[in-house]
This record gives sequence, C-alpha cells and structure tokens, in this order.
Amino acid sequence: MTADLQLFMEESKKELEASLYRYIDALQTPESLKKSMIYSLQAGGKRIRPVLLLAVLKGFEQPIEKGIEVACAIEMIHTYSLIHDDLPAMDDDDTRRGKPTNHKVFGEATAILAGDALLTYSFQLVSSISEEPERVVSLINELSRAAGAPGMVGGQVSDMEGENKDLTIEELEYIHDHKTGDLMIVSLVAGAILAGASEHDLSNLRHFGRELGLLFQIKDDILDIEGDADIIGKPVGSDASNNKGTYPSILGMVGAKEKLTHHLEAALSSLKKVDMDHSVLEELTKYVAFRNH
Amino acid sequence: MTADLQLFMEESKKELEASLYRYIDALQTPESLKKSMIYSLQAGGKRIRPVLLLAVLKGFEQPIEKGIEVACAIEMIHTYSLIHDDLPAMDDDDTRRGKPTNHKVFGEATAILAGDALLTYSFQLVSSISEEPERVVSLINELSRAAGAPGMVGGQVSDMEGENKDLTIEELEYIHDHKTGDLMIVSLVAGAILAGASEHDLSNLRHFGRELGLLFQIKDDILDIEGDADIIGKPVGSDASNNKGTYPSILGMVGAKEKLTHHLEAALSSLKKVDMDHSVLEELTKYVAFRNH
Repeated sequence: MTADLQLFMEESKKELEASLYRYIDALQTPESLKKSMIYSLQAGGKRIRPVLLLAVLKGFEQPIEKGIEVACAIEMIHTYSLIHDDLPAMDDDDTRRGKPTNHKVFGEATAILAGDALLTYSFQLVSSISEEPERVVSLINELSRAAGAPGMVGGQVSDMEGENKDLTIEELEYIHDHKTGDLMIVSLVAGAILAGASEHDLSNLRHFGRELGLLFQIKDDILDIEGDADIIGKPVGSDASNNKGTYPSILGMVGAKEKLTHHLEAALSSLKKVDMDHSVLEELTKYVAFRNH
Repeated sequence: MTADLQLFMEESKKELEASLYRYIDALQTPESLKKSMIYSLQAGGKRIRPVLLLAVLKGFEQPIEKGIEVACAIEMIHTYSLIHDDLPAMDDDDTRRGKPTNHKVFGEATAILAGDALLTYSFQLVSSISEEPERVVSLINELSRAAGAPGMVGGQVSDMEGENKDLTIEELEYIHDHKTGDLMIVSLVAGAILAGASEHDLSNLRHFGRELGLLFQIKDDILDIEGDADIIGKPVGSDASNNKGTYPSILGMVGAKEKLTHHLEAALSSLKKVDMDHSVLEELTKYVAFRNH
C-alpha cells in the first residue's frame, strides 16, 4: 500500500469510528441495545465501503466531512448483515475477527434486534443530513435497493441456496454481485450523488464498482488457498472444507488468476472514464488485487 | 362497528392487499424469498396501521390512493416485526392467526432474511413515491425513528427485559408506547404529511395516536381475561400464564377499565382539535375501545 493511500485510509477510519460511536451514543433506547450495536460496529475491519465513499468525495474535490453520515449508514448496514449472517440459524459462527460474535455475547434475541436497529438507523441517519431533499431521496432509494431483496439480502438467499451445490461461474457471480458487490457499488454511487456528479460519471462508477467487487472476491478466494494463515487471520482452506463454490474451485487457480487480471484491467479502465482525480481509488484497486490479507 | 366504518375498512384492506402482493411480485430476487415475504404479508389481521393512514387522508379530503405505497410500507414494517418476534430466539411461536409462523414454513434463516427484506423494502417504496422530496424525506425520517431503536425495536428490547418482572405502570406504558404505539402514531403522521397538514394538526394527531395506542393495548389486556376464546381466536388467560405484566395485573380489572375510559376520552378530545373530518377516526377509536376481539 502506498503511503498516500495508507494515510487516507487511516484518516477516514478514525473520522468514521468516532462518528459511529457518537451516533449510537445519541440514541434514546435501552442501554443493552446500544451496547450490542456498538460492540459489532467497533469490531474493526477494513472499513472498505466508507473508504470508497470518502475516496469518491475526495476525487471530486469535496470535503470528506460531507460524507460521514452516509458512510456511517453504509457501515451500519454492512455490520447488521454480519450480525445476522453469524446467527446460529445462518452461518452459526462463534467468532469474527478474533472476537466472539454478537449473539455469543448478547444472546440471539438481542443480536437479531441490534441488526434490525442498525439497518433502521441507517435510514434515519441519511434522512437527517443537510442536503438537497432530491439528493437525500435518491441516496435512500439507492441504499435500500442495494441492501434489500434486489441486492444484498437476495444475494445472501442465493448464497444459502447454492451451498453444497456445483455452481456455474454465472451463479457464483450472481451471488457475489448481490451479496457483496451491490453495497460496494452503492458506496461509490453515494459519494458521487453527494458530490453532485453527472449521470455519465455515476454510470462509470457503477461499472468500476462491479469490477472492484468481483476483484475483491476473487482475491479473497485465492488468499483462502494461497494465503498465510497468520497474515489473513483465519485458517486457509476453509472454503474447500465448507464445500463453498469459489473461483479457484470452478476455474482452477490459473483460471482464477486470469479472471483477477481481467477484472483489475476492467476496473481501472472504467475508473479512468470518470471525470475526477482517480489517484486514491486507483491505488485502492491495486491494493485490493495485490494485498496479502 | 358502524356500516360506514366497516365499508371504509373493507375498501382500504382490499386496496392494500392487492398492492402488497403487486409490490412483492415486482421484486427481482430469488423466488423463495418472495414466497416467504408474501406468506406473512397475506396472513391477514386488522390492518389497523394502514387503515389509520388512509383514514387521515380521507379526513383531509384526499384520495386514499395517495397513501397506498406508504400504507404498504408501514404494513411491511409491522409484518417484519412479527416475523422476527416469532423466531425461536424471541417468542418462539409456532402459529400466528391460526397459521404456522414464517420460520415454521420457510426455516429460520429465510424468515430472518424475509424480515430484513421487508424492512428494507419499506424504505425503497417510500423513497419511490411521486411527492415533493421534502415530504418524502420527512416521511422516511418519521418512519425510521418509529420503527428503530428509539421506537419499536427499543420497545421490544424493554419488553424482553421486563419479562417475569413486576412492572410499574410507567414501565408498562414505556413498553407499549414504543413497541406498538410509535408505529400507530407514525401511521397517522404519515397520512397527515401526505395531506400537507399543519404542524398544529400533526401535533394533535400525535397525541391522539398515543392515546389510541394505549387504548388498544388496555383493551387487548382486558380481552385476554374477559374475552370469548372463540371470538378473539386465542385462549384467554395467556398473559397471566406467560407471567406478562398487563393493565389488569397491575391495576386490577376495575382500574384497567377506568384507564380505558380515561384514554378513550383523551383520544377523542385530541382528535377533535385536528382541523379535519373526524368521523372515520372517531368511529375507529370507539371500535377499538368496545370491540369484543
């Protein structure tokens, strides 16, 4: 990672995490619910979605403060999805990023409700920003599509239905496009809406986001086989032992790496068509493709 | 119930149910998710929240068609809350209104996701209506507060925390205000926003809604003891056997009935201050107080 990108990511993360805490703290609601919401928001992670949003604002020469509420809203949606995914009825995970999962600490009922509350709060936050109402409506429309049945929730259902089945590459891409891709795309789109970008730029950022999402996923699949368990923070080979369809399992490792190169080039090519300073997003794209964790 | 009210409720219900089905059918998402969403939306019930919204529109001499999307959105939020409440980790209910609960038919994972999808879709629907953007933003802000941590979700957490405890009347009212009251209030407020009502009318409708919500709950508690099991559709005495704090358990039956009369009068008095035709809402309020199921 270049020093510029690292600095930008660290600054964004710091600003975001302070705001997340402040927004939850301001809620008038039972303390146990707040604690459960904050617990999962503070569990860390790359904060890739907020960083994408703020990087678009920076690229359009806008102050990143303009995007903090919406970036927090998107991180809340991402976090709610992780809390619900980890539940016993879903992936039944006891730990995430080395910490006990939400339901292990607060119980299943509170974990379900904390997820529900984070999702709902994300719309409250976006509906409270000081922006032209047309933009706010457009942000909420994009966010709800990306997060809901046509997007992330639909992708999660397809993923569940695809377990222990031989997936085609098209089925695998459908799952990734919706389960993880749509929320990454909407992060870019939200930054562009806040910056008042043109339809042309919005459209190219959508293409860029789709390629970046697939790139991200292929790299994850490759790291699950070739990565260093100590660096990636989880055992390698877990996809194979869970019978999960992956790029390497469908295309072989050589095929998966060819796909990676293809999507990297396509992502950078779409990004170049956007009328903005691309430097941070370009570095971020290369980092996603070449990272070792 | 008067013939006028009955006709209004039947017309509203018919319009609402056709629209609910149409909106879910239009979703691009896996069929299994759609089926699970539609199953719970079609489980029936009084549709009291949509009826409140449409009755406000009618009171302000607006066509009820103007409120169908938002009425559907509120019914989706209500339905998602029932699906999640019924889960094994929450109330663990196998049946609702005589039909197997969502998770009993579709499994827990799909039930959780169907709830998530309904909640998210409600914001997509509201953000898609043809109205002044200021009004849309205001609707979404009101809805998200009423449904989220400061409202319904917070009330649900308090309700869980109050189980098997001796509640004061204040604690019981806090639970009802948020668990069920806030969504009833926002139904009235949403109708008023769509009708372009004044701040003064909005404020009186809020007061009316709070009294109506408490009235509704006290009557439910009384029916659970004095009702006819065949008419109310569930065994009487279930609150007592679940160790649930209720108005009669805290105030005695005489005290509970005094409260009922008090909130009925307060509701009708607030309603009269709203500059609209009150007839449908007045009849509905009396129906809530005097119903036998």
